[in-house]
Amino acid sequence: MHENGRVTRVVCVTSGGTTVPLEQRCVRYIDNFSSGHRGAASTEYFLKAGYSVIFLYRRGSCQPYCSSLPDDPLLECFDITDDSKIQVHPSHAEVVKRAISEHRAAVVGGNLLKLPFTTIFEYLQILQLIADSVSKLGRSAMFYFAAAVSDFYVPWELLTEHKLQSASGPLDIRLAQVPKMISVLRKAWAPMAFCISFKLETDSNILLAKAAMALEKNKVHMVVANELSTRKDEVIVVAKSGNIVVRRDKAQPGAEVESPLVELLVDRHSAYIKEAGV
Amino acid sequence: MHENGRVTRVVCVTSGGTTVPLEQRCVRYIDNFSSGHRGAASTEYFLKAGYSVIFLYRRGSCQPYCSSLPDDPLLECFDITDDSKIQVHPSHAEVVKRAISEHRAAVVGGNLLKLPFTTIFEYLQILQLIADSVSKLGRSAMFYFAAAVSDFYVPWELLTEHKLQSASGPLDIRLAQVPKMISVLRKAWAPMAFCISFKLETDSNILLAKAAMALEKNKVHMVVANELSTRKDEVIVVAKSGNIVVRRDKAQPGAEVESPLVELLVDRHSAYIKEAGV
Repeated sequence: MHENGRVTRVVCVTSGGTTVPLEQRCVRYIDNFSSGHRGAASTEYFLKAGYSVIFLYRRGSCQPYCSSLPDDPLLECFDITDDSKIQVHPSHAEVVKRAISEHRAAVVGGNLLKLPFTTIFEYLQILQLIADSVSKLGRSAMFYFAAAVSDFYVPWELLTEHKLQSASGPLDIRLAQVPKMISVLRKAWAPMAFCISFKLETDSNILLAKAAMALEKNKVHMVVANELSTRKDEVIVVAKSGNIVVRRDKAQPGAEVESPLVELLVDRHSAYIKEAGV
Repeated sequence: MHENGRVTRVVCVTSGGTTVPLEQRCVRYIDNFSSGHRGAASTEYFLKAGYSVIFLYRRGSCQPYCSSLPDDPLLECFDITDDSKIQVHPSHAEVVKRAISEHRAAVVGGNLLKLPFTTIFEYLQILQLIADSVSKLGRSAMFYFAAAVSDFYVPWELLTEHKLQSASGPLDIRLAQVPKMISVLRKAWAPMAFCISFKLETDSNILLAKAAMALEKNKVHMVVANELSTRKDEVIVVAKSGNIVVRRDKAQPGAEVESPLVELLVDRHSAYIKEAGV
């Protein structure tokens, strides 16, 4: 865990949306919209900053180094030559090469561990395992909760076993609140880790107040507030010391808001580690 | 539309699950579990049987010729050589080549048109457009409704504009039934097309009765009944003339139930075309 005398910093990046089954033998579920782009892009910047990343991601969501690729890269970027060789289209060659080589370097180098989830149940169980194992790193561990975690669910014991039947008119569903596990993580699972949570709203009028409430209630170090329609251009980092607006550099083509965001967080994480005199 | 004097047969294969938004600026939605494997595999067999296929699929769901590939084929199947060339792993070379070449041949040859959807609203709108345009083929058109279409939704005008708030206790949702558009398609959009719908249940005790009800109610030509846990091995084709059990050939490695299923349907479609004396 030590390299050049420095304790390796590990960040757990959660990414994509969790599902909530509506039946035990699940045919229907409630899902949270999330491409996983934020988590995947942030993972790249954390790796670049020297962090080891545990990427806890929704199956099928966006992967690090793949955001510039089309939806079905295998079918869209490749061709078969006359002598039956696989060939990448020249127009996609650079992004494809970068995706494969940087992704592989991170995985083979032991700096990127990818763990998939689908349901909220899987997500919370794996998260607890991760928290248990990084808690021994103390302040060098970070949690970056970019996943869109369900707020509502049907507790397992209340789920019907079989597929809900549609013959008998409208369907009423009562959803309970998912227990907020971030505050449990802060109190018990990994109390020394540096914790960043996210708050997404579609209504900008309530966004900052909700983010400040989450900061207070969950005792996280910072909350990244983002609005659905502008989330790729701008976020507001809400902390006790004040709010910081982070924008992507529009002058630079392809610049992502995750670049200055991760830079800021790495900086604050360093300060947090120093505070303890490590 | 003619080839060797025979009217080209066109099948519209629907595939994957539709989503139902729970907010107008959608953060949460209800989804139907479906990998899209059935639709993707069936598309391959329809193409093999000489059909042109309109593949109406859920974004991100399984694609034709790709079912033997890992989840992220680009990251899992390829490597970069020392001289910076992209190379496919020998262990994956054959499936990757087959996926790229057969998929490309079908698309370039004009026999495979792929149209993606996400929400039930998109799905129904595109379906109507397809039905309108294939209706002129009369009996030579087929619909193969393998998609898992939502039974329940919140009508657009009843959706809240903003993200549902979780602070105020449990959430009650009332879902209305989605209008059954298959019977509208049968009556008005493409009344001569040969129509196959699907019925998925988790409870085998009610499956056949539900399939028979759907046959009667929607006036489709056949209903493919499948149970969630055994759907990859066996389906039961329910028709007025009686039920036919279709099983995959377990003696043959890699054999799929979609192979004999499509064979049976193509056969019945031929009989249906002949009936009219075409």
